[in-house]
Amino acid sequence: MECRRRLNRRLILTNGFVFSILSYMVNYNERLGRTFAALVDPTRRAILARLEREDGASVSELAQPFAIQLPAVMKHLDVLDDAGLIIRSKVGRTVTVQLRANPMREAMDWLRRYERFWSKSLDRLAAYAERKEIEARKTRR
Amino acid sequence: MECRRRLNRRLILTNGFVFSILSYMVNYNERLGRTFAALVDPTRRAILARLEREDGASVSELAQPFAIQLPAVMKHLDVLDDAGLIIRSKVGRTVTVQLRANPMREAMDWLRRYERFWSKSLDRLAAYAERKEIEARKTRR
Repeated sequence: MECRRRLNRRLILTNGFVFSILSYMVNYNERLGRTFAALVDPTRRAILARLEREDGASVSELAQPFAIQLPAVMKHLDVLDDAGLIIRSKVGRTVTVQLRANPMREAMDWLRRYERFWSKSLDRLAAYAERKEIEARKTRR
Repeated sequence: MECRRRLNRRLILTNGFVFSILSYMVNYNERLGRTFAALVDPTRRAILARLEREDGASVSELAQPFAIQLPAVMKHLDVLDDAGLIIRSKVGRTVTVQLRANPMREAMDWLRRYERFWSKSLDRLAAYAERKEIEARKTRR
């Protein structure tokens, strides 16, 4: 009886563990998709780039350089907020927007896996340049 | 007359230079948008991840693990191809797909700008842990 109870407990624990891994993977995939989707639009990238330079800006300040209307900027801010890339805080009537770069970390870690491929192309380029240099030296002699 | 001609030539050169910078920026922004858009979908990310592990795969091999139909996989491959992330080559009846990671480099360079923000959070976390450790030592005495 005790043995059965232990086995059941272990099964529940294992299921719980598998479930948390699965739910982490689903969340991870969703987060990653949301981050990349937020970065597709050039206006949203420009907003993030500005918030990288300045430590927070009001919505109207952010909207000012763009040729689009304020509601369109607000929609872009909603997308960035959903992706967890900005934080909005309201003081009086002014909404201040600040950068929250953490989700970009996961995106960058995902991309980092492919880094060896462009290092490979650089290696090939370096090898080519070296070969050409040796050839040039030979003809100079 | 000669002076005017020189001035005109200089203006044409300057315009040409400004034009090439502008067209580079537009292309850069378009490329970046296309790369991020290609990375939004989890199926496309899974295809790229597989091509990172294997040096090329046929379309049917790529389609096999997914619960979607072949035409849907083909559409995903079109998006990846448009973003310059894969190369398709046909030998006989078999289309082989290979990874072309270069566009990811620009995407990663764009994200790298924000790296200092998450390093900052790590610094804050380290400082917090250190503070807690010192507090704990004091109470132990």
